[in-house]
Amino acid sequence: MEHSTDLTAFFEPRNLAIIGSFREGLFGGYLAVQSLKRSGYEGEIYPINPMYKEVLGLKVYPSMDSVPGEVDLALVMINGRSVPTVISECAAKSVRGIIVVSDGFAERDEAGARLQNEIVEIARSHGIRLLGPNTAGVVNMANGLNLCPYNGGGYPLKKGSAGICAQTGMVNPQAFSYRGASIGVSKICDFGNRCDVDECDMLEYLENDPETRVVSMYLESIRDGRRFLETAARVGGRKPILVLKSGRTREGARASASHTGSIAMDDDIFDAVCAQTGILRLEDYGDIFEMPKIFAAGRPALGNRLGIVTFTGCIAVLAIDEGARYGLRPAGISEETRHFLDGIFPGLGKMPVDIGPAMAAVKDAFDRYPGILQTVAEDDQVDCLFSVVWANPDAHIIGSYLDAYRKMQHFSKKAVATWVYGPDPGVASDTAARIEEMGFPTFSSPETAIKALGLAVRYGTRETPPIPKIRKTWQQA
Amino acid sequence: MEHSTDLTAFFEPRNLAIIGSFREGLFGGYLAVQSLKRSGYEGEIYPINPMYKEVLGLKVYPSMDSVPGEVDLALVMINGRSVPTVISECAAKSVRGIIVVSDGFAERDEAGARLQNEIVEIARSHGIRLLGPNTAGVVNMANGLNLCPYNGGGYPLKKGSAGICAQTGMVNPQAFSYRGASIGVSKICDFGNRCDVDECDMLEYLENDPETRVVSMYLESIRDGRRFLETAARVGGRKPILVLKSGRTREGARASASHTGSIAMDDDIFDAVCAQTGILRLEDYGDIFEMPKIFAAGRPALGNRLGIVTFTGCIAVLAIDEGARYGLRPAGISEETRHFLDGIFPGLGKMPVDIGPAMAAVKDAFDRYPGILQTVAEDDQVDCLFSVVWANPDAHIIGSYLDAYRKMQHFSKKAVATWVYGPDPGVASDTAARIEEMGFPTFSSPETAIKALGLAVRYGTRETPPIPKIRKTWQQA
Repeated sequence: MEHSTDLTAFFEPRNLAIIGSFREGLFGGYLAVQSLKRSGYEGEIYPINPMYKEVLGLKVYPSMDSVPGEVDLALVMINGRSVPTVISECAAKSVRGIIVVSDGFAERDEAGARLQNEIVEIARSHGIRLLGPNTAGVVNMANGLNLCPYNGGGYPLKKGSAGICAQTGMVNPQAFSYRGASIGVSKICDFGNRCDVDECDMLEYLENDPETRVVSMYLESIRDGRRFLETAARVGGRKPILVLKSGRTREGARASASHTGSIAMDDDIFDAVCAQTGILRLEDYGDIFEMPKIFAAGRPALGNRLGIVTFTGCIAVLAIDEGARYGLRPAGISEETRHFLDGIFPGLGKMPVDIGPAMAAVKDAFDRYPGILQTVAEDDQVDCLFSVVWANPDAHIIGSYLDAYRKMQHFSKKAVATWVYGPDPGVASDTAARIEEMGFPTFSSPETAIKALGLAVRYGTRETPPIPKIRKTWQQA
Repeated sequence: MEHSTDLTAFFEPRNLAIIGSFREGLFGGYLAVQSLKRSGYEGEIYPINPMYKEVLGLKVYPSMDSVPGEVDLALVMINGRSVPTVISECAAKSVRGIIVVSDGFAERDEAGARLQNEIVEIARSHGIRLLGPNTAGVVNMANGLNLCPYNGGGYPLKKGSAGICAQTGMVNPQAFSYRGASIGVSKICDFGNRCDVDECDMLEYLENDPETRVVSMYLESIRDGRRFLETAARVGGRKPILVLKSGRTREGARASASHTGSIAMDDDIFDAVCAQTGILRLEDYGDIFEMPKIFAAGRPALGNRLGIVTFTGCIAVLAIDEGARYGLRPAGISEETRHFLDGIFPGLGKMPVDIGPAMAAVKDAFDRYPGILQTVAEDDQVDCLFSVVWANPDAHIIGSYLDAYRKMQHFSKKAVATWVYGPDPGVASDTAARIEEMGFPTFSSPETAIKALGLAVRYGTRETPPIPKIRKTWQQA
């Protein structure tokens, strides 16, 4: 293998050095130290700067060679032009990985591109891996490694099984509220200008990461087409890989080139790559975070028959329309289910199961809710379920929902996507959070819930991906 | 004109009767009274039921004819089979409009469909208009008329200029948090089974409603094609009309037919209707509420040149990709703007304007933010602006944003769509709310912000709609 793909220095450093300014502000070493302390990183942290004595209770060392112990990882946040010197100093200290946060490289201008080539050469000659430059760094939820160097980057994250990586810092903690959106992550990585560590390295690392069940990526281009085809096909066989690729249009591709200094790839070629490797293609920025939830839940969709339990016909119709985009088709229901449901309320026994009229008309109707949801979810004609929950601000009603999901924890082996709506955003988000705690993902809209099921069906019903063929068009790209 | 389109009895009743049960619960007359009291309705409310004496401090009358004064509007929530009798009683009292909340009509079965025909005939013979049956009713923010009969329907709404109407109760206050989503409404109407009052009546009413600047609708079908073409073309010339039509697919259309008892129309025909009338077609449930915001703001987009001010290249690239779907193209910038921006930070003077690097590098950079936003927004080469705001939890930074928007209030005549993101959902939503207070709409994602601008450009650059031609295919539908 051409690259060493051991990224442990980046995600599992026993200790790390931070080279930068340590004054308080919007950005810099002070904030990186603060993020690490807040996230509970237990390794040694060595701030390095000859102008400071102490930062947040930590001794600041005047230089790399004055650090007493070993250094696995260095975080570099100094002026771009000084980065080559610092890399050499890191080499002398046997540093294994360097995260170059500094900008002013290939994304800036020609001189920056030359500087970027220079740091790559120095690092390679010493066997050091580089992440960045122009990166917001990494997070590892397994060891409390959040070194986000921005104000706001130290907010607590939610631990989970999605590995998120991107050619942008828009997935890092200063930009996105993982906790607010109730999305659990294992690892986060911003490739920045991607001068060395790239999406293939990350796929290989996440392939063997036991904390990661699903990989979600934002890419503007692919660095090494041949390796990507092979890696994505292999890793994708073990864990779903979701990719939002921008630069879909000519105008977008042009903007992308000027933003990261990388050349965007033809979008049709990327579609072919997805078809060959089984990559699930995303559409929107929010998908990066929301779509992994259906895979993190660990309940597969082994067929495309969509069951629906709803409070309102409108959402069922919209869901069926949307489902058609992903090849989902409305499930039927068995005679037993029909009989059971019609016994609760005449006409309830058909798909989509619209419980709205019954709930308004039948006494103690909500006590029947757990039985209804269970019966539909267990029906043999249903492969995956869209559950629509009306978060009415009545404790008894909410209790019925929670009761239903608690029961479903024990029997349901099928993918369930839930959308919670209601008049009070607090009640709705609290209800959603409690459903999620039981292992059932909730989504921000009916359409994203259906999209998630669509992706789950595509993954659950995939054939084993063929050995990828390297196409001519691809090599030319 | 065939129909009387005077819906004042429904939206501006001087007084109203409520016929139903008044026990507390999930649904019913008690809750309708509660909603009306909470929303500040000042007309007389006459609860009617021989089994009750008083509800929420109001005298309950034993029958319609025992009500002392006149009754403009009746809200009927009794068993469907008793509705014909009540309509006759309303006729004797010279009631002008009746909202039939009761279900069990055409949406249920053949017998229900016959019952529905019966109530229409009785009402027509007395010149009474019917809304519903199977409706959650109406809201008028101008007079505090919120008669929502569901638990949770009495939450306060946000007053604004969007008239929302739908073949579903999913736009009514028990289902959607207008205040939570920061969406201002003028009127809300659920057509229910749409046995009489329909989308054309509503368009004509909203056409002349001074509180309504934009109309947003959810439809599963169109009741009277010829009238809709004429009405939508005429009203659409005065106010934008946004329509989410479901039943786009064969499966969706089938589900729709079973849900409202109405026959869905061919989707291609609806596209042709939109093209002929200038209707702006929506895609997602959330669009019903979010897309009107760009029109409510009152700043038009008179061309398709999209300016972008962002903290991150990734979002600019995604926005440009997404913009291409709606015919937006990246704006250039004038020499003066380029010069001004490059003077702040080298390389800042290009479109998209990515202020991220400058903000991290330039001392007091955020003090320059208002000037940057103003210069880009005022550039002659920019027709509409996508502004990306990083809600960093630093009061000074937030202050700079608010300062910028405050200034922009005075000079900006162009459509501006803002997306606020950040690590703390509370800071982000609070910042968004303060930007909205200044008259600039914010959106829930980069894609919805761009979609809103796309619709604004489509509306702002439309030609005067031609006089619609009634097509054969349409008449047959």
